[in-house]
Amino acid sequence: MESSGVLQQLIRAFRCLPGVGPKSAQRMTFHLLQRDREGARRLAEALIKALESVGHCKECRTLTEMEVCGVCASPRRDRSQLCIVESPAEMEAIARATGYQGLFFVLNGRLSLLDGVGPRELKLDMLESRLKGGEVLEVILATNTTVEGEATAHYIHGMAQDHQIPATRLAYGMPLGGELEYVDGATLTHAFNGRRSL
Amino acid sequence: MESSGVLQQLIRAFRCLPGVGPKSAQRMTFHLLQRDREGARRLAEALIKALESVGHCKECRTLTEMEVCGVCASPRRDRSQLCIVESPAEMEAIARATGYQGLFFVLNGRLSLLDGVGPRELKLDMLESRLKGGEVLEVILATNTTVEGEATAHYIHGMAQDHQIPATRLAYGMPLGGELEYVDGATLTHAFNGRRSL
Repeated sequence: MESSGVLQQLIRAFRCLPGVGPKSAQRMTFHLLQRDREGARRLAEALIKALESVGHCKECRTLTEMEVCGVCASPRRDRSQLCIVESPAEMEAIARATGYQGLFFVLNGRLSLLDGVGPRELKLDMLESRLKGGEVLEVILATNTTVEGEATAHYIHGMAQDHQIPATRLAYGMPLGGELEYVDGATLTHAFNGRRSL
Repeated sequence: MESSGVLQQLIRAFRCLPGVGPKSAQRMTFHLLQRDREGARRLAEALIKALESVGHCKECRTLTEMEVCGVCASPRRDRSQLCIVESPAEMEAIARATGYQGLFFVLNGRLSLLDGVGPRELKLDMLESRLKGGEVLEVILATNTTVEGEATAHYIHGMAQDHQIPATRLAYGMPLGGELEYVDGATLTHAFNGRRSL
């Protein structure tokens, strides 16, 4: 037996979601059609609306349905600090967790020559003109601590230096609640060498 | 900072999916809008098409976009066997895993008086007329082995008896690859008492 064509199409369509394999996709399909058709309709409508209206902020490149996102448009934010992140989700995480009141620049990726992602793809020319503008007094490099994230941070550090703007990098060290025994050696070395007096 | 309204709406909409919490919903939203807009469009279209066209088979009550599903319409299936399952996903699982060539009846639920699910909600009147029709010679009770699934099997067994149709229940026992040590006591008791000579 095969499910009918329309059901199979929906099951396949769910596979575009990250972390959703064939079993979850089937479970989602049957759940929505049997128990939550209203939710399914809302999801379809929200998807279409987002596809139609969400683009990139023309200043910081985060995802937004406005021309300039709420953060960039806010008059209360400190325009002298610019935090560089790889993705809108990471911008969201920093804005939510920390008390940071400066602005962001979202790369929507990281330098990766193997994948054909260079300065052009990350719109580093937009970042360049921000740095040239003279408003930015500190660049905070908050790319991920992966090889590519580090390379990206290094590259942007060079750009900041060209404009005599000091750059900082998020601190490496022990995660809170982390147990020494289970932290990887590289992190432990960073935490040890970066120890601070109490 | 809050994501813009349209993004928040889409994140909330993803929460209707089973097993999707706020973090996954955000990840799905950003993933689709940044990296797979084509997939998002296909998903929205598949949802709308399924909502428009998928209903219940008028014979077995599984989900299908046809009036009578492929299984019920097939001339090659054995119409003397009727397997009762709780959901289309379970019908799918039996059809895929076993060589069963008979027909199905999908309850789309289980008897649960606390939740207001009685014989009427499970369309047991439709099942009743199938049993009365004289075509069915064996009822296979494949409801889940939960309290409510057992109660449902018991109830339908009574209906089958009224029409002198023999009913069978799926075998209880050890799952394949299961280790005795980790199987719950009730299952182990069933497996032990139901032991067979080699």
